[in-house]
Amino acid sequence: MRRIGLLVEYEGTGYHGSQRQARQDTIEGRVREAAFALTNERSRLVSQGRTDAGVHAVGQVMALDTSTEHRPDVFVDGLNRFLPDDIAVKAAAELPEGFDVRRRVSCRQYRYLVFESATPAPLIRRWAMVSDARLDIEAMDEAAHGLLGEHDFASFASRPDRPTNPTRVMSRADVWRKRNIVEFVFEATAFLPHQVRRTVGALLEVGRGKMSGERFRSFLEAPAFATAGPSAPPQGLYLWRVRYEPPIFGEQP
Amino acid sequence: MRRIGLLVEYEGTGYHGSQRQARQDTIEGRVREAAFALTNERSRLVSQGRTDAGVHAVGQVMALDTSTEHRPDVFVDGLNRFLPDDIAVKAAAELPEGFDVRRRVSCRQYRYLVFESATPAPLIRRWAMVSDARLDIEAMDEAAHGLLGEHDFASFASRPDRPTNPTRVMSRADVWRKRNIVEFVFEATAFLPHQVRRTVGALLEVGRGKMSGERFRSFLEAPAFATAGPSAPPQGLYLWRVRYEPPIFGEQP
Repeated sequence: MRRIGLLVEYEGTGYHGSQRQARQDTIEGRVREAAFALTNERSRLVSQGRTDAGVHAVGQVMALDTSTEHRPDVFVDGLNRFLPDDIAVKAAAELPEGFDVRRRVSCRQYRYLVFESATPAPLIRRWAMVSDARLDIEAMDEAAHGLLGEHDFASFASRPDRPTNPTRVMSRADVWRKRNIVEFVFEATAFLPHQVRRTVGALLEVGRGKMSGERFRSFLEAPAFATAGPSAPPQGLYLWRVRYEPPIFGEQP
Repeated sequence: MRRIGLLVEYEGTGYHGSQRQARQDTIEGRVREAAFALTNERSRLVSQGRTDAGVHAVGQVMALDTSTEHRPDVFVDGLNRFLPDDIAVKAAAELPEGFDVRRRVSCRQYRYLVFESATPAPLIRRWAMVSDARLDIEAMDEAAHGLLGEHDFASFASRPDRPTNPTRVMSRADVWRKRNIVEFVFEATAFLPHQVRRTVGALLEVGRGKMSGERFRSFLEAPAFATAGPSAPPQGLYLWRVRYEPPIFGEQP
């Protein structure tokens, strides 16, 4: 059985997240339906990780098993023919036999967008959280840098269903403003459930002057699940890029 | 009766255009409903111009007559409370008595966005036309510059319902690319019906190498309604900014 890697972009607004669930409209569900329409096979489809309801992806990675002999680019055009217009396959590549798209990830990058506006923002509302407060970028960026390295991130994650090791290694955590858009970027090999949205939620408290940088740091020192702050809303979050070594779709820009 | 100027932003996707029509969901219809909810008056509402179904606005201008004594900023927050999230009032200002928001316009600016992508673009599709052809920007920009000045633009406009003078003065016509986004900008005091979308449609023929610059120019020399090319789709078009002298909402950035 061949395994085809798929690079998938989607607007998450209309879906109950990426992971397939019975009787729910999900990204994986739609990709599986498109694969069945294209190949007439009920194929195994695995994502490198899930995204929650309403969360977008620029570069989700999925692995589709198939016994067909289509060239990888046939999966790009062929699946797109059967996908709704809020989901698209951007690239496809042959993977080594048995390649595990989940465990082989070397780095995941998430971005979160906040649009600063005193009034509602009809042309932005699907793509960013709208904040009517002017945020203190320097304070948020400094607090974010405190997350770098290996920590117990339990305070910044939802309570997991099963006991798990809440230690992760954050390799990038930056915040900047470009015009009225505030952008958060986080990179790690792996994240805890809801970690990015809860981290942004806590950083926004810092940016609004409601939480000190010292208090923010204290959550790393005395971790307890979901204590650092509220979860920022899903429409601002993007699974931006998933890296493998070597890259599976060639070099991404 | 006072007259309040409203600066209105909207995503046009879900509406049958801006102009009020019986039994159709329109931008003006929604603003009138919100005004009634706020003021309990059935007020006269006039836009500086209409936008077609699916076309967006960053800066539409409307004039609302009212006998209430609310300060203008009360109309911003008050109308937004009753508007759906794809329409928002961004600013409001007291206008001189009898001010005609349509005839007093000194300059209208439209922008059109094209996203160059060989594959469908779920995160862009609402905000730009997607082109799988790589466009020749230099050829389009040069052709666009030929539109500057006073011309009979009938070839670039739909046949009007009533006889009209098709002469207009184009004061800006530029095309550029930033990463994968191609942006068209047009400025004039007034435009003919569908002029921007038909102009972009014709320029895209030039950009794809299907129409020569010479042929494009010929449509100005021998004008006949709607002959220059197809109409580009609505989701790429933005009514960007409407200028008055002096500015009615203070200086816009």
